[in-house]
Amino acid sequence: MSKSFLYSEIAENLASQIRNGIIREGDKLPSVRMLCAEYEISMNTAKRVFLELESQSLIYAKPQSGYFASKLSYKDLPLPGESNPILLANHCEPNDILQKVYANIGREDILLLSYTVAYGDMLPISQLKKEIVQATRALPTGGVQYDRVEGNANLRRMVAMRSLTWGANLKEEDLITTNGGMNAVALCLMALSKPGDTVAIESPCYPGILQLALGLGLKVFELPTHPRTGIKIEALKEVIDKIDICILISNYNTPVGSCMPDENKKEVVELLASQDIPLIEDDVYGDLCFTGHRPNCCKSFDTTGNVLWCSSISKTLAPGFRVGWVAPGKYKDKVLNVKLVHSISSSSLEQEAVANFLKSGKYDKHLKNLRQKLYLNYQNYARVIQQSFPKDVKISQPQGGLSLWIEFGDKIDTIELYDAAIKRGISIAPGRMFTLQDQYNNSMRLCFGVPWNAQLESKLKQIGILAKQLQRLNS
Amino acid sequence: MSKSFLYSEIAENLASQIRNGIIREGDKLPSVRMLCAEYEISMNTAKRVFLELESQSLIYAKPQSGYFASKLSYKDLPLPGESNPILLANHCEPNDILQKVYANIGREDILLLSYTVAYGDMLPISQLKKEIVQATRALPTGGVQYDRVEGNANLRRMVAMRSLTWGANLKEEDLITTNGGMNAVALCLMALSKPGDTVAIESPCYPGILQLALGLGLKVFELPTHPRTGIKIEALKEVIDKIDICILISNYNTPVGSCMPDENKKEVVELLASQDIPLIEDDVYGDLCFTGHRPNCCKSFDTTGNVLWCSSISKTLAPGFRVGWVAPGKYKDKVLNVKLVHSISSSSLEQEAVANFLKSGKYDKHLKNLRQKLYLNYQNYARVIQQSFPKDVKISQPQGGLSLWIEFGDKIDTIELYDAAIKRGISIAPGRMFTLQDQYNNSMRLCFGVPWNAQLESKLKQIGILAKQLQRLNS
Repeated sequence: MSKSFLYSEIAENLASQIRNGIIREGDKLPSVRMLCAEYEISMNTAKRVFLELESQSLIYAKPQSGYFASKLSYKDLPLPGESNPILLANHCEPNDILQKVYANIGREDILLLSYTVAYGDMLPISQLKKEIVQATRALPTGGVQYDRVEGNANLRRMVAMRSLTWGANLKEEDLITTNGGMNAVALCLMALSKPGDTVAIESPCYPGILQLALGLGLKVFELPTHPRTGIKIEALKEVIDKIDICILISNYNTPVGSCMPDENKKEVVELLASQDIPLIEDDVYGDLCFTGHRPNCCKSFDTTGNVLWCSSISKTLAPGFRVGWVAPGKYKDKVLNVKLVHSISSSSLEQEAVANFLKSGKYDKHLKNLRQKLYLNYQNYARVIQQSFPKDVKISQPQGGLSLWIEFGDKIDTIELYDAAIKRGISIAPGRMFTLQDQYNNSMRLCFGVPWNAQLESKLKQIGILAKQLQRLNS
Repeated sequence: MSKSFLYSEIAENLASQIRNGIIREGDKLPSVRMLCAEYEISMNTAKRVFLELESQSLIYAKPQSGYFASKLSYKDLPLPGESNPILLANHCEPNDILQKVYANIGREDILLLSYTVAYGDMLPISQLKKEIVQATRALPTGGVQYDRVEGNANLRRMVAMRSLTWGANLKEEDLITTNGGMNAVALCLMALSKPGDTVAIESPCYPGILQLALGLGLKVFELPTHPRTGIKIEALKEVIDKIDICILISNYNTPVGSCMPDENKKEVVELLASQDIPLIEDDVYGDLCFTGHRPNCCKSFDTTGNVLWCSSISKTLAPGFRVGWVAPGKYKDKVLNVKLVHSISSSSLEQEAVANFLKSGKYDKHLKNLRQKLYLNYQNYARVIQQSFPKDVKISQPQGGLSLWIEFGDKIDTIELYDAAIKRGISIAPGRMFTLQDQYNNSMRLCFGVPWNAQLESKLKQIGILAKQLQRLNS
């Protein structure tokens, strides 16, 4: 085992003990010497372990006393309960809050906490500019001519190689590139569904998926979902005879941040395969684990080609590049045909640039950085929420991704909160966007991909003040 | 009137007299002096007029005798008749010839005459590479962050400005950018149709539109279409009570190359508006007039916002960039919402580069060049077809665009011809791709966007030889 691997293994081991409450707030950690003895490592390696934990705000040093576990403010706030949607396929009319919120995309005069995007120095913009320039020069026709329908070969090769790390064994020819992750899901759903079909999803659910399903004339089953472990499998079993397709955001789901445990992934994959119900897996957040290894996907447990694994670099690297992909399993021809008909091919330039970024190892370095920044951000958000939001607030405890799900008491309507916040230059995502039923009216999603600074802290506090005002007004 | 305008006006005037047979093969043209007197122009201007006509192969000089009208080989071949599809909404299963043909996109080992794309030095590749590099540097985040849903503002402004030249008066905010022209049509059709609706189209029709309609669960009415003037308006009137949407490629249509006269455009627009049936206008070839002014669009005659005008630079500049747009009239909110749901936003980089290319005037220079090359190419194709194809062949007479529609006698099945040609490294587009009915089996489309050279000439001749062999075999 290499030294650097060893040090990060040990750090991760201790980190998860702290996060899971095995080591509690104020507990003294083993000394440097004890760690050396226990793991048979050098003093230097042991010191690196503590520095790593300190940089993640998991521990703090007391002069002459050693290291102690930090207070993890997000631990103090209760988790929202498992969701409880009505188990009936139903079609409400989409409400216009969605259009209102998404009309703000790309605006620079507003603090955008409403979309799950990493902003500012979270993304390696100057490195990516260089990659684009190089790709433009390197591509035979500079990307001016049509690419093949399946998309850039270098990118598909790099994505296939990375799939080894999460237990899949994809090959270049298993993959099709798309205009971002949502486009991958859209192509799959168009390829597999016919109007009147029923699709099962998590609840609350990413609004793009809800709107997509409605637009294609599908019926939607919202499944009860736990904020840590994802859909309740019992509920899926209950409706299994009534559904034609299932769509899940398996890892660090938006909005609730759930990550399905391996055993749940396996069980769901086997259950759906046994009924020949395709599973469209949206895995755009999988690379954003706060620490440790990237989680497996449902695709890792797919032995029949029944899982269509969709992902992108929109959440981790460059949203504006519109680079995504899908490994559609046994449905490849169908998906390829829909891509051809809807957009012929995709732009090759950004795909080539991303492929080179992955190949050079810069992506992994960037991810390491980004994950740590996001984790610290999440802690900061949780601290401010605890200090400034109404006392009865509940928040999710994601272990990765970009979304925080916040549940207020029932006196607060988050559509009213949106209206109040947007006047102060803050955009939030009201809970009603994430369902086709009349629920989540007192919940909202905040993205923690905005770099931390005093202005962000002050705006977050403002949201808290506005929420308290609404609470008083409606009491 | 400026001098350069004057000279090109006069040249175009004479050119159209030659093309329309008012001046016939071998007819002597007026002398330079006569032209000077008739139009009150200088000797130099008159000489430029003749040089222009000569460069288009429309006239030739005889020493000491003056200029004479050339033999226009395409004039000798008869035009295919008006099409005659069954006037019933029907759904055949798509046949697999389409997948077979489109699987070749982007291949470099095959002569691709099957897609309507301009290749090689027809496109200003090195100029576009420079634009990309500059756009990457100029964009605030290098295109890394999400653009607004409606797309790049500079591009929308430039497209709006150009719309003045064809009688529309679009503004930046009337436009939404898309991933190419086909994606624009797809977004419009998804925004406006519901499964079971009926759409009226030209016949033969661009296969992407047929497949798109089938994929969305729509019924399709194929309308009789004249190879010069487009759909037969009487037929549209006949089915008007049975249709919900109409899609037309109004200018230099693919595959037949028809261009609707202004009075037809106006009549169709008024007819559809009176019945509240939206018209999706696909105008991707409009900029590719061989000579003279770019034609008007149906959108030019739209007073009610009922026309959704779709276009792109895929046929004129950079297919691989996937840059298109739509002016959706009164349906803007619906189209914007579908774009949001299916792909969130589009890649900004290529849009910015194209906007700058338009702004700099390089696009107009490029177009002038490209139009002339395409016209000469078309003449060369027609000459080889006349010399080497079976005697009873008929070909369309497009005045722009990239497609030639070729009709053989009924002994030739162009799917068989495809199979024979692909073995020799040539890809053609069999007529059966362009309909959902059992017709056009003896027709095919050839793209004339491939730069002319000896190899292309020899491959075209090979197609002729193969066609003659098939004719003998099947007689």
